[in-house]
Amino acid sequence: MMNGTMVTLVGVAVSQVRYATTVGGVPVAHFRLAATERRFDRPRQVWVEGDTSYFTVWAWRSLAENALTSIGCGDPLLVTGRMRVREWERTDGRPKGVSAEIEATALGHDLARGTTVFRRTLRCRP
Amino acid sequence: MMNGTMVTLVGVAVSQVRYATTVGGVPVAHFRLAATERRFDRPRQVWVEGDTSYFTVWAWRSLAENALTSIGCGDPLLVTGRMRVREWERTDGRPKGVSAEIEATALGHDLARGTTVFRRTLRCRP
Amino acid sequence: MMNGTMVTLVGVAVSQVRYATTVGGVPVAHFRLAATERRFDRPRQVWVEGDTSYFTVWAWRSLAENALTSIGCGDPLLVTGRMRVREWERTDGRPKGVSAEIEATALGHDLARGTTVFRRTLRCRP
Amino acid sequence: MMNGTMVTLVGVAVSQVRYATTVGGVPVAHFRLAATERRFDRPRQVWVEGDTSYFTVWAWRSLAENALTSIGCGDPLLVTGRMRVREWERTDGRPKGVSAEIEATALGHDLARGTTVFRRTLRCRP
Repeated sequence: MMNGTMVTLVGVAVSQVRYATTVGGVPVAHFRLAATERRFDRPRQVWVEGDTSYFTVWAWRSLAENALTSIGCGDPLLVTGRMRVREWERTDGRPKGVSAEIEATALGHDLARGTTVFRRTLRCRP
Repeated sequence: MMNGTMVTLVGVAVSQVRYATTVGGVPVAHFRLAATERRFDRPRQVWVEGDTSYFTVWAWRSLAENALTSIGCGDPLLVTGRMRVREWERTDGRPKGVSAEIEATALGHDLARGTTVFRRTLRCRP
Repeated sequence: MMNGTMVTLVGVAVSQVRYATTVGGVPVAHFRLAATERRFDRPRQVWVEGDTSYFTVWAWRSLAENALTSIGCGDPLLVTGRMRVREWERTDGRPKGVSAEIEATALGHDLARGTTVFRRTLRCRP
Repeated sequence: MMNGTMVTLVGVAVSQVRYATTVGGVPVAHFRLAATERRFDRPRQVWVEGDTSYFTVWAWRSLAENALTSIGCGDPLLVTGRMRVREWERTDGRPKGVSAEIEATALGHDLARGTTVFRRTLRCRP
């Protein structure tokens, strides 16, 4: 229930998924994602790789749980969600850093790069 | 190598994947996808489903091959790509129809709704 | 307060802005927008125009009022908002039509094609 | 002629437009843009402002020229283009910084916040 900057990333997980639960018991996961531009080199008439941007992707609840069990470092992914550019203070008094963070609303393996076997989450109630 | 309207859809496959190869031997696949809005109903303080939009999603080459083997009707997906609103003539002389089509650049199962086992496409050369 | 398919269009207004107020007194405006792909023709090494998609753009409240006074037919625009593909019944019993509609959250003249003199809306209270 | 991460920002210019020409004579401009989330506070039933993200927006050629003459600090804008998260070395040996940069493909004043008088760029040939 928020208006913000929506973005879709196509890239590769460059870390493992780190998983935790909040004190209130809500699952949360995050990992780093690298998105590399592709550029057409006209003189050589081939596609070449351009700059790479790095993002921290956050997932909550069942998306966090399923990301943990499904995603490995190196997996090709697509992610859509709300982006923030966060500034943070360093504890040692050095200047502020900046990181680009995505709160994912949907996330999955990219079928352009491989196949998936999907299994729907069942909501069992005891 | 085109500038157009980029869009990201989160939805559900509502058809099987249809697969073919062009006369030049290029794999191409398409399927229908339904994307349903979610709206917060303030008086009742709950999320409710809103309107559903239907799209035809097109995939080419390895994305077409992997979509065919990975996606079943009913699967939750996210898709990003270039959108066109195509007008087409009916063969029986009735007025033109319109359809919203996406040429996917990346496509995958939505981990918000289940888990995936991913297997990278290997490029074997004989 | 809705989750849906966000899209950004770059194109040209191909109708006048039509303006009305709802029975509750809320300003609403709509117009047609054409978005044309640009494609790089490699053999000829030039950009050429590709397919054109047509959309109906809706604006509400001050965005409707300012669109009415600022936009003329033929103006180059950029629009961002929520997209729906709406199916509608024809009154004469013919088959349903489909139209792609955008509910704009922001909208403006494209400075890639000209200059603007901007004047902020003042909120005067009597 | 590049594939990358497309993003649309709705925000406010928080610097003047800086303008230059490359050694090859190509106009280039940049400015800082702040994009602030809006969040619905359910207990209080009002929209409140959330986090603000800052971006550097780059424009080239006629978009750079028209941005220079049209945009002032404080103006409400929408921008669409290709995003990069750039890491840069500090000259004094301190740790690398990171900035989020947008190469604009289209850019304009947001009619949700005011009115514009548009004047098309004429391409005169002597």
